[in-house]
Amino acid sequence: MAVYTDVSDSDLRRFMAEYDLGEVLSCKGIAEGVENSNFLLSTTTGNYILTLYEKRVNPDDLPFFIGLMEHLAAAGFTCPVPVAGSDGRSLRRLCGRAAAIISFLEGLWPREILPFHCTGVGGALARLHRAGAGFALSRPNALGPAGWRLLVEATEAGADTVSPGLAAELAAEQAELEALWPKTLPQGICHADLFPDNVFFRGPAVTGVIDFYFACNDSLAYDLAICLNAWCFGLDHEFEPERAQRLFDAYQAERPLEPAEIQAIPVLARGAAHRFLLTRLYDWLNRPPGAMVRQKDPLEYLKKLRFHRAAASPAVYGL
Amino acid sequence: MAVYTDVSDSDLRRFMAEYDLGEVLSCKGIAEGVENSNFLLSTTTGNYILTLYEKRVNPDDLPFFIGLMEHLAAAGFTCPVPVAGSDGRSLRRLCGRAAAIISFLEGLWPREILPFHCTGVGGALARLHRAGAGFALSRPNALGPAGWRLLVEATEAGADTVSPGLAAELAAEQAELEALWPKTLPQGICHADLFPDNVFFRGPAVTGVIDFYFACNDSLAYDLAICLNAWCFGLDHEFEPERAQRLFDAYQAERPLEPAEIQAIPVLARGAAHRFLLTRLYDWLNRPPGAMVRQKDPLEYLKKLRFHRAAASPAVYGL
Repeated sequence: MAVYTDVSDSDLRRFMAEYDLGEVLSCKGIAEGVENSNFLLSTTTGNYILTLYEKRVNPDDLPFFIGLMEHLAAAGFTCPVPVAGSDGRSLRRLCGRAAAIISFLEGLWPREILPFHCTGVGGALARLHRAGAGFALSRPNALGPAGWRLLVEATEAGADTVSPGLAAELAAEQAELEALWPKTLPQGICHADLFPDNVFFRGPAVTGVIDFYFACNDSLAYDLAICLNAWCFGLDHEFEPERAQRLFDAYQAERPLEPAEIQAIPVLARGAAHRFLLTRLYDWLNRPPGAMVRQKDPLEYLKKLRFHRAAASPAVYGL
Repeated sequence: MAVYTDVSDSDLRRFMAEYDLGEVLSCKGIAEGVENSNFLLSTTTGNYILTLYEKRVNPDDLPFFIGLMEHLAAAGFTCPVPVAGSDGRSLRRLCGRAAAIISFLEGLWPREILPFHCTGVGGALARLHRAGAGFALSRPNALGPAGWRLLVEATEAGADTVSPGLAAELAAEQAELEALWPKTLPQGICHADLFPDNVFFRGPAVTGVIDFYFACNDSLAYDLAICLNAWCFGLDHEFEPERAQRLFDAYQAERPLEPAEIQAIPVLARGAAHRFLLTRLYDWLNRPPGAMVRQKDPLEYLKKLRFHRAAASPAVYGL
């Protein structure tokens, strides 16, 4: 839930004068996305999304994110496309922030996951991985093992207030993951945050993928392990084998996994659960008073982490 | 900033099956409005607003609010119009809440007030008052003098934590207002919450008025006094005579004030400032932890209240 910055009409008018998008008919803040301020902008030429990049996005990364959306769209992957201003630039400034207008993507993100959604996201992720090939820019994953270590340290003092013994469990998990983490799997562009609110559907069909602001270069199978965590657990955070089967089958129909990737799935899934547990825990411990962001429960990912830790082989996931 | 209820796709699909509005293309929570959950709904037939009425709206009042929008629109006043389902009913239920689809109104609400906006809102308010004539239902103003008294009592214990001496000042103000409050001014349908975020503009023209969920029957000049408070003070809450002049001139061009209404403006303005000071103070003292609502500063209205209390005559406002 966002909209941190309110845009005045005169600021908006000045900004829109740099585009050929017609007259603004309405501009409403959207209560989705927690990193940036997003507005649904209706003009005489159509609907668009206006994004103001807030402080959690590093401005140096914006050319990567904007360029990636352009690259993916040009490769035939359905995602928002940055709209260039009259001067050809798609990244400019508004209200003291970096800002861009991106195309509006139809579809609804699924609030309740049904098995067919996992088929949809599996195929979409594989197509995203294929479409990302050849993108000229690269960005390391700031939330890989070295980044996790910083978060383990930053949450150490408060972790036990959320769940007794959590600090020690995270430290042990971090050490094990660093020792086990695979480094030679096929690499490429990863979305790295492909949760249900970032995948739009119309009926069973994926209409597109949004929110590339965690995208990075990493092991492609790690991106799939993130989806496994985000899509294949039920309301009580229990593993749902049918969903995982659908996810992997649909992914492999478009990009078959290599044997080493399949073998690595249990540890990659642990790493992904550890990563989201850590960022949620950090946000939980550091929530500003009166924040307008809905807190996500860190313990959901503790339950998932323990499940993956107990998984003896890829067969647990149907692989 | 709202959206308290998240609507699942299957709930939305069931709900939309009761309308003839085509297929849903997208449904995004809007970060505006603090009383209800609002969604911008795009379908193959156009854009709409889906509203779920949250607990601050009394369900018994909904036929009044829905009927009023229909009455005003039929009288030629531009406001959202409830969309009826296939069965002819425009009020139904979704996710355990009363819900309605209303038409989408173009325009932007002004984040910074310029004098021409006061011309616009003055004319719109007078047209609303004229269009409200003949509406069959009525609703007393729950936030009149008797309602203020309850708020004075409910905030008495905490008021001095916000500003020393505030509790005593509010109690004295309440007593004076009860003694001075005019009861025989021309009555009619009042919007009763016509703040800038409820008035949409396209250039200098008002494209419509939204949010009728405080509407009630009361003295029409009191509604104008609410606008005086909401539109005619600057960023430091200082009175702006030019704005007031524009507001009153534009209002009177469409509905001339009677002499008794003009004489009553100073006390009505005091009452309006007292009312918003009290509700903001109450919300401030009773904000839930982790609330996703941006708090409004109660002291803005203390400053305005003191200004009006010192106003010796309508001439202070250019009347």
